[in-house]
Amino acid sequence: MITETADAQALAAQLATAARAAAGRLASATSADKDHALGLLADQLVREQERILTANALDLEAAEAAGTSGALLDRLRLTPERIAAMAEGVRQVVALPDPVGVIEGMARRPNGLLVGRMRIPLGVICIIYESRPNVTIDAGALCVKSGNAPILKGGREAFHTNGVLVEMMREALAAAGLPADAVQAVATSDRAVMTELIRRDGEVDLVIPRGGEGLIRYVTQNATVPVIQHYKGVCHVFVDESADVTMAADIAFNAKVQRPGVCNAMETLLVHRAVAPRLIPELFTRYKAAGVELRGDARVRALWPEAVAATEEDWSAEYLDLILAVRLVDDFGTAVEHIRKYGSGHTDAIVTNDYQASQRFIAEVGSSCVVVNASTRFNDGFELGLGAEIGISTSRLHAYGPMGLQELTTKKFVVMGSGQVRK
Amino acid sequence: MITETADAQALAAQLATAARAAAGRLASATSADKDHALGLLADQLVREQERILTANALDLEAAEAAGTSGALLDRLRLTPERIAAMAEGVRQVVALPDPVGVIEGMARRPNGLLVGRMRIPLGVICIIYESRPNVTIDAGALCVKSGNAPILKGGREAFHTNGVLVEMMREALAAAGLPADAVQAVATSDRAVMTELIRRDGEVDLVIPRGGEGLIRYVTQNATVPVIQHYKGVCHVFVDESADVTMAADIAFNAKVQRPGVCNAMETLLVHRAVAPRLIPELFTRYKAAGVELRGDARVRALWPEAVAATEEDWSAEYLDLILAVRLVDDFGTAVEHIRKYGSGHTDAIVTNDYQASQRFIAEVGSSCVVVNASTRFNDGFELGLGAEIGISTSRLHAYGPMGLQELTTKKFVVMGSGQVRK
Repeated sequence: MITETADAQALAAQLATAARAAAGRLASATSADKDHALGLLADQLVREQERILTANALDLEAAEAAGTSGALLDRLRLTPERIAAMAEGVRQVVALPDPVGVIEGMARRPNGLLVGRMRIPLGVICIIYESRPNVTIDAGALCVKSGNAPILKGGREAFHTNGVLVEMMREALAAAGLPADAVQAVATSDRAVMTELIRRDGEVDLVIPRGGEGLIRYVTQNATVPVIQHYKGVCHVFVDESADVTMAADIAFNAKVQRPGVCNAMETLLVHRAVAPRLIPELFTRYKAAGVELRGDARVRALWPEAVAATEEDWSAEYLDLILAVRLVDDFGTAVEHIRKYGSGHTDAIVTNDYQASQRFIAEVGSSCVVVNASTRFNDGFELGLGAEIGISTSRLHAYGPMGLQELTTKKFVVMGSGQVRK
Repeated sequence: MITETADAQALAAQLATAARAAAGRLASATSADKDHALGLLADQLVREQERILTANALDLEAAEAAGTSGALLDRLRLTPERIAAMAEGVRQVVALPDPVGVIEGMARRPNGLLVGRMRIPLGVICIIYESRPNVTIDAGALCVKSGNAPILKGGREAFHTNGVLVEMMREALAAAGLPADAVQAVATSDRAVMTELIRRDGEVDLVIPRGGEGLIRYVTQNATVPVIQHYKGVCHVFVDESADVTMAADIAFNAKVQRPGVCNAMETLLVHRAVAPRLIPELFTRYKAAGVELRGDARVRALWPEAVAATEEDWSAEYLDLILAVRLVDDFGTAVEHIRKYGSGHTDAIVTNDYQASQRFIAEVGSSCVVVNASTRFNDGFELGLGAEIGISTSRLHAYGPMGLQELTTKKFVVMGSGQVRK
């Protein structure tokens, strides 16, 4: 445990300096070398799974002794199947195109200069996350593929597991002739080193906190390094007057029930009053059978008396559970206003057969993902075609929505001349 | 003067709330309406120039009474010619394509979903700047065109001038049927309101500080809102062994002398030792005639004894003046190392006739603009084809290099389905 500020500063400086040097080398590594390192990693994960499972057993034991609950224990637990899935994830990253070095929009200026923008890595990325150890491998692989050097700070519950996983990444990098320091872990569970790292702007290029709202607020308040934020997903489905009722019921059911604990699950259903009498009895019967607790306004409860009365807090709640807030709206404008007021800018969907309503919804709702006639659950890097994702941003700078390999890069201008000078 | 924290908080809250509401309306305004407002503004600037000049006279009088120096007074002074140039700048922004609403990369996913990314405004942008009043109009016009609502905080020297310019923008917006609050000024010269604004993340989407390093550090240290940084431009020209000596001399002369007070002017010249005896006498004779003070290492001074001995500080100095640091290097690698160690990631150029050197320079130098055989002075939004610029970013997140209209937007995912749900 690091308790002295001086020690935390020294460790942060050491991590940042090593990461910077490694990032410099990794930035000009070929795709072939990066892919080779990741291929070695995928092999090693499976071949040396006992090493991982032994470390994981230590973490599980400590967590059980500390009285950790069943769901959290399950998130922490690795099995041969889960390790195989991690390795398969790495192979999928290998198969993705490398964004680094791509030059976009190269064109000649009137004075003959050839100007384009080349994708380059961001540099050093500090990733702070909780619990699930697969994030270590997912995030590490995406960073290496895109030429970035991550400094990983996982949760203390997964300390031993993450330690072995980072060791394996470093071994694979070294075996491929790349700098091992391209992936580093903060080798303490103390928050002090993280707090130092996120204030080293100029050395650390980005911090991605993945976890609860408290962690993200702490990082935003204390960082001088840019932060990718993902506060919460208060996602809406609005069933418009003209909606196909069967389609609306299928989408609203899927958006709530298919995986309620994730950020792109629906939390509030808005129903146009004209369609409510046809939609609600059928849909709510299905919800009830699936164990969904329904919280509605007065008009919803008139149609479905079992519903609990929704309070003001329900409209901005991220339940991440089988609970749904439902409101009847008189018109399209009220639905959009509701989404703007209570939404989190994550994912919002409309179900409609009206052309103008679909166009207006796309234009007027500014969330990171705006959906017509499909489930909110599609806001995901894989589903939207990015190949993979390192997280979802709900702040508008740099990336908005899922971040894939391309969002882990920036673009520099490349100018090729033949002696041009400014007049 | 606002001295109470509570007052500053109240004013910041009022500005942010009004800006947010206006940004919501401006985001879905048509290009025609936005261009109409900007056209009215351009007309009004010229037609009502007396109103501007009267306010400007007040600022000039106060500045003179405070003993402000000639160069700063000149930056502050408006004339009919300068007002006409501001109006012309606004017309140029009108002529640029509106980035908002453009959908990029729309393609169908295997499940039939149509997925693309639509450009949308960032939202509310706080711009903090010093001295020159034309920034008020330039920045205001770029923000309105890209659908963003700026909160402008100019220098106290230009308080009255900026006040009238913002009034005119608000009048033009209202006359075009757009919300006047789409452009607001912080109506106090006190820093307290700005400090409150840059901590209102969730309401303010971006802060762009344009000014000295002190201002930028202050904002970076205190903001929770994302910051576009532009610390300084320590730009290099490296004259490689194979360079055409005449071209190298022309580029090095232009990069230093054409406009020494700007961020893309060269501050350090690196010369390959093999070319130095041919380049230095001719080039330095021209520099001397132009009044450039030369500071060199021992080998430079052996070739040009008049040069002052350069110290370690010179290698990272941003002179913004007719002073140049010069170093002889033994090889390409040393030049790149020097740029990585002392550069600011702004603009770096190589002069070379060697194919491999040009390719390596582009690959290995990570600055926001990497130039082969042309002057560093081309790193500018107009010169690189962006049409206009609101500033240059030397941090890698969101934008790297000049920021034009496109960099004032973000992209949201648009998903159009026919009832798809997640399996």
